[in-house]
Amino acid sequence: MLNELSSDKLREKCGVAGVYNSDLTMDAAKYLYYCLYSLQHRGQESAGIATTDGRHTYYHKDMGLVPEVLNEEILKQLRGHIGIGHVRYSTTGDSKVANAQPLVVRYRGGSIALAHNGNLVNAAELRDRLEEDGVVFQTTIDSEVIANLIARFSSNGIVNAIERTMDMIRGAYSLVVITEDCLIGVRDPYGLRPLCLGKSEDGFVLASESCALDVIDAEYMRDVEPGEIIIIDREGLKSKRVKEVNRRAFCIFEYIYFARPDSVIDGTSIYAARKNAGKILAEEHPVDANLVIAVPDTSIPAAIGYAEASGIPFGEGLIKNRYIGRTFIQPEQELRETAVRIKLNPLKYNVCGKRIVMIDDSIVRGTTSK
Amino acid sequence: MLNELSSDKLREKCGVAGVYNSDLTMDAAKYLYYCLYSLQHRGQESAGIATTDGRHTYYHKDMGLVPEVLNEEILKQLRGHIGIGHVRYSTTGDSKVANAQPLVVRYRGGSIALAHNGNLVNAAELRDRLEEDGVVFQTTIDSEVIANLIARFSSNGIVNAIERTMDMIRGAYSLVVITEDCLIGVRDPYGLRPLCLGKSEDGFVLASESCALDVIDAEYMRDVEPGEIIIIDREGLKSKRVKEVNRRAFCIFEYIYFARPDSVIDGTSIYAARKNAGKILAEEHPVDANLVIAVPDTSIPAAIGYAEASGIPFGEGLIKNRYIGRTFIQPEQELRETAVRIKLNPLKYNVCGKRIVMIDDSIVRGTTSK
Amino acid sequence: MLNELSSDKLREKCGVAGVYNSDLTMDAAKYLYYCLYSLQHRGQESAGIATTDGRHTYYHKDMGLVPEVLNEEILKQLRGHIGIGHVRYSTTGDSKVANAQPLVVRYRGGSIALAHNGNLVNAAELRDRLEEDGVVFQTTIDSEVIANLIARFSSNGIVNAIERTMDMIRGAYSLVVITEDCLIGVRDPYGLRPLCLGKSEDGFVLASESCALDVIDAEYMRDVEPGEIIIIDREGLKSKRVKEVNRRAFCIFEYIYFARPDSVIDGTSIYAARKNAGKILAEEHPVDANLVIAVPDTSIPAAIGYAEASGIPFGEGLIKNRYIGRTFIQPEQELRETAVRIKLNPLKYNVCGKRIVMIDDSIVRGTTSK
Amino acid sequence: MLNELSSDKLREKCGVAGVYNSDLTMDAAKYLYYCLYSLQHRGQESAGIATTDGRHTYYHKDMGLVPEVLNEEILKQLRGHIGIGHVRYSTTGDSKVANAQPLVVRYRGGSIALAHNGNLVNAAELRDRLEEDGVVFQTTIDSEVIANLIARFSSNGIVNAIERTMDMIRGAYSLVVITEDCLIGVRDPYGLRPLCLGKSEDGFVLASESCALDVIDAEYMRDVEPGEIIIIDREGLKSKRVKEVNRRAFCIFEYIYFARPDSVIDGTSIYAARKNAGKILAEEHPVDANLVIAVPDTSIPAAIGYAEASGIPFGEGLIKNRYIGRTFIQPEQELRETAVRIKLNPLKYNVCGKRIVMIDDSIVRGTTSK
Repeated sequence: MLNELSSDKLREKCGVAGVYNSDLTMDAAKYLYYCLYSLQHRGQESAGIATTDGRHTYYHKDMGLVPEVLNEEILKQLRGHIGIGHVRYSTTGDSKVANAQPLVVRYRGGSIALAHNGNLVNAAELRDRLEEDGVVFQTTIDSEVIANLIARFSSNGIVNAIERTMDMIRGAYSLVVITEDCLIGVRDPYGLRPLCLGKSEDGFVLASESCALDVIDAEYMRDVEPGEIIIIDREGLKSKRVKEVNRRAFCIFEYIYFARPDSVIDGTSIYAARKNAGKILAEEHPVDANLVIAVPDTSIPAAIGYAEASGIPFGEGLIKNRYIGRTFIQPEQELRETAVRIKLNPLKYNVCGKRIVMIDDSIVRGTTSK
Repeated sequence: MLNELSSDKLREKCGVAGVYNSDLTMDAAKYLYYCLYSLQHRGQESAGIATTDGRHTYYHKDMGLVPEVLNEEILKQLRGHIGIGHVRYSTTGDSKVANAQPLVVRYRGGSIALAHNGNLVNAAELRDRLEEDGVVFQTTIDSEVIANLIARFSSNGIVNAIERTMDMIRGAYSLVVITEDCLIGVRDPYGLRPLCLGKSEDGFVLASESCALDVIDAEYMRDVEPGEIIIIDREGLKSKRVKEVNRRAFCIFEYIYFARPDSVIDGTSIYAARKNAGKILAEEHPVDANLVIAVPDTSIPAAIGYAEASGIPFGEGLIKNRYIGRTFIQPEQELRETAVRIKLNPLKYNVCGKRIVMIDDSIVRGTTSK
Repeated sequence: MLNELSSDKLREKCGVAGVYNSDLTMDAAKYLYYCLYSLQHRGQESAGIATTDGRHTYYHKDMGLVPEVLNEEILKQLRGHIGIGHVRYSTTGDSKVANAQPLVVRYRGGSIALAHNGNLVNAAELRDRLEEDGVVFQTTIDSEVIANLIARFSSNGIVNAIERTMDMIRGAYSLVVITEDCLIGVRDPYGLRPLCLGKSEDGFVLASESCALDVIDAEYMRDVEPGEIIIIDREGLKSKRVKEVNRRAFCIFEYIYFARPDSVIDGTSIYAARKNAGKILAEEHPVDANLVIAVPDTSIPAAIGYAEASGIPFGEGLIKNRYIGRTFIQPEQELRETAVRIKLNPLKYNVCGKRIVMIDDSIVRGTTSK
Repeated sequence: MLNELSSDKLREKCGVAGVYNSDLTMDAAKYLYYCLYSLQHRGQESAGIATTDGRHTYYHKDMGLVPEVLNEEILKQLRGHIGIGHVRYSTTGDSKVANAQPLVVRYRGGSIALAHNGNLVNAAELRDRLEEDGVVFQTTIDSEVIANLIARFSSNGIVNAIERTMDMIRGAYSLVVITEDCLIGVRDPYGLRPLCLGKSEDGFVLASESCALDVIDAEYMRDVEPGEIIIIDREGLKSKRVKEVNRRAFCIFEYIYFARPDSVIDGTSIYAARKNAGKILAEEHPVDANLVIAVPDTSIPAAIGYAEASGIPFGEGLIKNRYIGRTFIQPEQELRETAVRIKLNPLKYNVCGKRIVMIDDSIVRGTTSK
């Protein structure tokens, strides 16, 4: 199954978050705003929040970074103590606002909003079957398939509908869902995508990474288990373990470069994992060098690990221009060879005349540069 | 039925257009752009175009005026010889981008795009029945109900599906629809909303008003008949008269102030209708006056008609500031009484010391001012 | 002298306004905003306001229409009871923000802000002389020459400086000027450009056209005389007639199409002047026709005048699309011939088969169309 | 003199660059764009470029970051082989577009453009004297004083004018200047602000920091000497040492946190200087700790230096959110205490239970945190 997913793995790096405040007067939107900010590294293409005050469901989503999509005025309109948010990764494919999340739909049971991180492997097959039944689709995202399944299975309540939906869908999914009265978190049976649970002063928080709990002062409780459904409503938190599989298959790229180093996923510190990878590399591939440098910024922990294990000093070797953004004009003609220096300039003082171990994100493939 | 509609009549002033070019290399989008520009008076809230090149369906829609939503770069991406467009009236209600049209959906038969002018009276009832069957809704527009019905009835082809849909829906609707290979126009059995048919050099055009035919040099053929379906594909134009009713019920407000004076609707010139209304007013309500003026700009024909019938000279009496737009800052406090003069300043030279007949849009209610 | 100016006459259609409120707590900026709105037809390229509260001088100016340049937040920052404003005509020449007005400078006497409508004929010569003295110029507008002259002559006060400046400059100028404590209006000795004076509830107003007085409920007092300086400060209004010439040379294009029909310039209603021009045309060029139409909107008064004098009925013949703005995409190829219809569509009902007198702005050149 | 400057030192952190291409067909603007990008850390308030093709001088400047102010279309219009650029530091004071640089003026000798990094201590006195002579000022920047002085002294050529200007002005200044035919660089006699000289393939480059040479593949030649004028024209490079003082007074804050670590200023690597400061700190203030961390990102070299000298391992301790920008909404009420975590989240894995040496920019003041 991992193979089937692998071609799409980069496309499906998204971030999700959910907030449930017990105090009905505390709006979830502003909390979600900060959660999404701290998950921004997981997706820069689109952002969105959906909330409910128990009667109405509000949402706003658009192409762009969190601060481009959401401002104070919009956050005020996103009323209600329950909400979810989503950031989507930039890709050239179906990059359009119709595919931004959360997806909000009205069904016989009321309103439901979903945000999805992952990639179903049988989405096309499920679409075909639903279309045969007369269903129309307005987007190309998996969330719309999931929403239709939940709606069809909803005669015995939302949790039952989600269980039956999990029987149908295959692949990677970490889902956050809201109805008018509850927040639900779901993780696929293999635990392919991360999803963790936190306790805030006044309620609960779900998020792709624990760094999103930190920013709103929520305490990390645990990761949502593979195949688990978490239901949070006025009665508190319930858990249902609906699908069990013998093996886990967490995406290794989360540890290598997706996740933030200050996050803990499935009990392991990302920073520790990266530093340890550098140590292993130093042991397996010792080199005779004067300096260990990192290609900023993801690989700094691995470089520090390599340095500590090898005894070769760690230092800066490439200085990043912090201001290069999306509107940067790519150099042409004469300057093409030096283009890379605009973003990343060698620190000549430190690197000239030295033998360098350069650690970048591809260390898992065993690359070592001099 | 008209009564049921009346409360919403202002909300449902929209404009629709459809273009079918026989020459596959001639893109429909640019024609639609000019059509929508000439229908802009029918809706300033949102605008959108959907096109098909026979294989893919493209669309773009957003809040704003036609030139704000559509630019040259976007038009280039809206490929294909068949297309439809929509402008939506500004309202405080469900003004959001999710409700912009055309609505584009994928169903078992392929892709379908719809644009709707009107207001169904049984939409809520139909939604409930569809939701009972497990359908989810993402918008609050009638087009989504219509699209779901068409998809469910589509086993015997799109035309049959539209006929069966017309059996279900009640109320006002002028619809333009595209599939991958045809353009379809539909008008409700009472003919409540306008829809006319034109012949372009290379194909056919459908539009809410004939002024949209003029701008692309298409020749006005006739109005679509109440209860008629027009199908345009590579074999040419076919017509099907599916629903007949004995009485017509065209919305009188189209003649009074919705439509443009250079349009012809159901065989009657809007300009002539307005001028004639002014004449009748002069006969029924003769007044002793020196000057007939119009509250710009819609009532100029009626004022001219009144002047001709009464022998009282027509003149300008209120000068409109052509630059007042949506970002205009409303005056406060001291200037409140004079606020109206900023938009519409009395032409003192012409009106001071005179007895004035002032004709405005409400002439049908018999108001005459001095 | 008119000949020298004529080539530039279109370039120098600008609008100016000045407000002096006796009540120190009444900010001038909002009044100027509405004045500029009503003068927008005189210039759409740039807009700006400068104000003073007696201690500091504030200004804001930029490319664009009044509502694009000025918003509520900016108006709040433009503090003080005295102020001037400017709108500049759109042109391809030196269209840049550096040339927007008012020009605000610091000189030995404090701060001075100027806004200028007109065109000096000896500006280049004066620039050369000032540069010889070591002066540097940052713009290409005449106001910068005038400001430098005033600064150099300022040892005996601002009014004396303006008088001496008027001795140097030649050409068309209607100027509004503020220092920390007064508002000054100046009109060139030939009266080439308009400038009128009004009385507001609490002070005085200067403006290019009287329609700008109407919108803020100021009463039209009179036009500033050719060669006159008006000084308004806490002691009230003073006038100084500094330059007298025997002949006046007001720009005829103001009457034909620059000014708004509801303005009165040098005692003559623009509407009356245009209507009268139509009457004279009817007498000098009688034609056998069924209908008189105007090319909207400037020539409606002349068309009404022609109709009244000739007995031929006036009617609408061309319907203008009110929504065509600066971002309109020009049609190419196939649609080129019909392009004009997008902006101005013939009202076929009214014009087909008739003999038409079409009145446009060029009536002064004697053109009459059938 | 340093004391007089010190209160303003932060305000006057700007970046300047100048490019002279011998090949007349090679436009300077694009090179300057990349130079300014690499100097962006020196100023984020405004950006601008002025160029000359030997006949006309072109410029564009506005509030905002380099990519906000300059785009491909604008760069194309900035024609010519000679040019200068400027980035200005963000401040609450006179932050307005009128104060953006370069300043471009017309004077008797033609056009001149200037960009200035520094702060004159006798600017107010010079302004007063110039105003007494009838000069008007349109900005509050020192460049306008300098431009006026150069213009007044210009009878014997631009270089002589700059020399005479240097006799008048006191304080910190690194200046780049262009006329129609040359690029000039000037550094004040104390060398308070940096300015370095590079050789490009086809000409010469001046820049505040050497990192701006690297990005356009220019070779660092040397720093401009205190009191030196560099003149680059078609005959090559000339140097004139006009003012000599016995002592140098380079601003220490450049080494501590203004400059980029990959720059070399006055022969010293910024990285080396910072790392060395960390070493000295370790020697002067040894502490018993388990981990040395840096408050990102400026103090990483000092932290590495401290770690190396003390033998305490260096590691990451605070993870920065790279996406926090100017539109970030500050948290209120409940979240205030945790606000700092949104921008900088503690890496709990690495810091919990450890004794930490935290190195930040204030190391020169001897602060050490646990």
